Amino acid sequence: MTCAGDLTTPALLADAGVLEANMATMSAARPGLALRPHVKAFKCTALAARLAAADHVGFCCATVREMEGMAVADLGEDLLLANEIVDPQVAGRLGALVVAGTRVTVAVDSSETIDVAAAAGIREVLVDVDVGMPRCGCDPADAGRLADEARNAGLTVRGVMGYEGHLQHLVDRVERERRTALSMAVLTTAHAEVGGDVVSGGGTGTWDCNHVVTELQAGSFVLMDGDYAQLGLPFAEGLVVLTTAVSVRPGQHVALDGGLKALAMDSGGPQLVDDQGGAAEVLFCSDEHTTVAGGSWAIGDRVGLRPAHIDPTIAKHATLHLVDDVTAGGDAEVLESWPVDLRDW
Amino acid sequence: MTCAGDLTTPALLADAGVLEANMATMSAARPGLALRPHVKAFKCTALAARLAAADHVGFCCATVREMEGMAVADLGEDLLLANEIVDPQVAGRLGALVVAGTRVTVAVDSSETIDVAAAAGIREVLVDVDVGMPRCGCDPADAGRLADEARNAGLTVRGVMGYEGHLQHLVDRVERERRTALSMAVLTTAHAEVGGDVVSGGGTGTWDCNHVVTELQAGSFVLMDGDYAQLGLPFAEGLVVLTTAVSVRPGQHVALDGGLKALAMDSGGPQLVDDQGGAAEVLFCSDEHTTVAGGSWAIGDRVGLRPAHIDPTIAKHATLHLVDDVTAGGDAEVLESWPVDLRDW
Repeated sequence: MTCAGDLTTPALLADAGVLEANMATMSAARPGLALRPHVKAFKCTALAARLAAADHVGFCCATVREMEGMAVADLGEDLLLANEIVDPQVAGRLGALVVAGTRVTVAVDSSETIDVAAAAGIREVLVDVDVGMPRCGCDPADAGRLADEARNAGLTVRGVMGYEGHLQHLVDRVERERRTALSMAVLTTAHAEVGGDVVSGGGTGTWDCNHVVTELQAGSFVLMDGDYAQLGLPFAEGLVVLTTAVSVRPGQHVALDGGLKALAMDSGGPQLVDDQGGAAEVLFCSDEHTTVAGGSWAIGDRVGLRPAHIDPTIAKHATLHLVDDVTAGGDAEVLESWPVDLRDW
Repeated sequence: MTCAGDLTTPALLADAGVLEANMATMSAARPGLALRPHVKAFKCTALAARLAAADHVGFCCATVREMEGMAVADLGEDLLLANEIVDPQVAGRLGALVVAGTRVTVAVDSSETIDVAAAAGIREVLVDVDVGMPRCGCDPADAGRLADEARNAGLTVRGVMGYEGHLQHLVDRVERERRTALSMAVLTTAHAEVGGDVVSGGGTGTWDCNHVVTELQAGSFVLMDGDYAQLGLPFAEGLVVLTTAVSVRPGQHVALDGGLKALAMDSGGPQLVDDQGGAAEVLFCSDEHTTVAGGSWAIGDRVGLRPAHIDPTIAKHATLHLVDDVTAGGDAEVLESWPVDLRDW
């Protein structure tokens, strides 16, 4: 048996029970293809295979690397690149997947993305509609015209996509539901112009208040994170970066051997799994350390940190270790060690 | 010839001329072993080899992985792990390097770290002294006692180390110099108790106001970053994440295909290499996108972003491309492509 204490720290741990429970909760509400898990959240085909085994065999990707890795892992039954491709070389990599038998659908939101997709041998698209977040997606008024353009270019238009990313983290549930409905009304109108069976969108934050999408693009729910945890969703936090106390100044501070190269900082710093009854708190992170004020740890103790944002945290690690209890520190049993094989581009 | 425009974006670019000029400026002030370049800043043995070719053959590392990678790359003439090791397995990896002929020195700041080093076959240490930043380093009053302990354990004590990391980014130069002198006075006193030839410390921010260290542990100067750039140091910014404009809403915003998985966010968001005369500004980063307000980019244009912090930005990428002009966008010529081979732990 391998214990988490045998791993070189910092080590990325996922709780097997939390993962299973989060998946069960989501699957009950959104069975099979009603959920299109977003692999950008975890970048790991072994974890994706667990979702596929639970009948969620259509996946959502954010990068070409993710699309290729999922295909190699034989998880390419229905892959959506929920992102725009404008580089013919990159589109060509997707075209090669199509030739090899992977079902590839890409988002398009402009004449240029349609032309690039068609030229690369991609056959299926969704029209990506701006539903209020300033990022990708066409002007809703252009959706019908773009669908016509795509069909004229020989592409099959499966439907629409629209991501209400700006609403995912709204803490007030009533406000989140109200604004999601407004945002999805835009998508419904565009869908009427575009046609097709698919309405793709949503995320972990709107998992039960987005009543429009036919497939929910959620990923973070599998292991959650500090930022989403404020919403009171029925998904538990299951990701921990395990560190070792490498330097201790009794009564003052402790230096842990995992810092901002092991933990995403975009949504704030990490939280201690066990703050020793409020006696300890994270002071700051530097490249390879986190300094904790207070606490009574000894040199060599394993100390867990919960990241504020799981997606970019996982992308910083080569391996995700599945353990029996992520709160057990070095005593946790390592059940499986999964490569984070969808990193990079 | 490969152009940066041929690379899959996001792509990490380093400016060859800036790198050379920054190295020349530093080497003139701190020739040879007076500089101990910190590889944590760039995690790339090909870049380290450039520094070694300029006579800086002693290196500083933050992780065991960096130590091993440097040894494999035949850059192990004098490697300092400027960090504490308390895990016997990890120390054993360093002991194996010693057996293989690498000169390994590690920082110790406690009886535990001394015992672990001695047991692993590590032969040389520096006593790491707390000079004011709450992280690693012993109470200065304990330095002499720890040196005695180390010698009694059979270790050679090469001297002391003390990192004034809390002063590196002080914008006021007079204040930075004044406080560095105070901080280094602590190290000088400890050194008198410890003995040995080496006084190791400092960084890019205190490169010319730390007059105490015999070897400067600087790394960021090679390519600089937004955070350090405020200090008015004679090192130029040479690192850019090249992205592609994948979605454009004319007069509103542009979505670029590199976000917080390609750019470190701990010191703030990225800056545009070219803000089109102030017409454009970064609005926010999401996982795989940066949204820019304003500007007149067309779909497919390559757009450069300067990260606020280079160390964790480089650690997010598998490859660092050396180019002739990092401000030239897709037209830059790719001179060399270097693996970021010291990532992970």
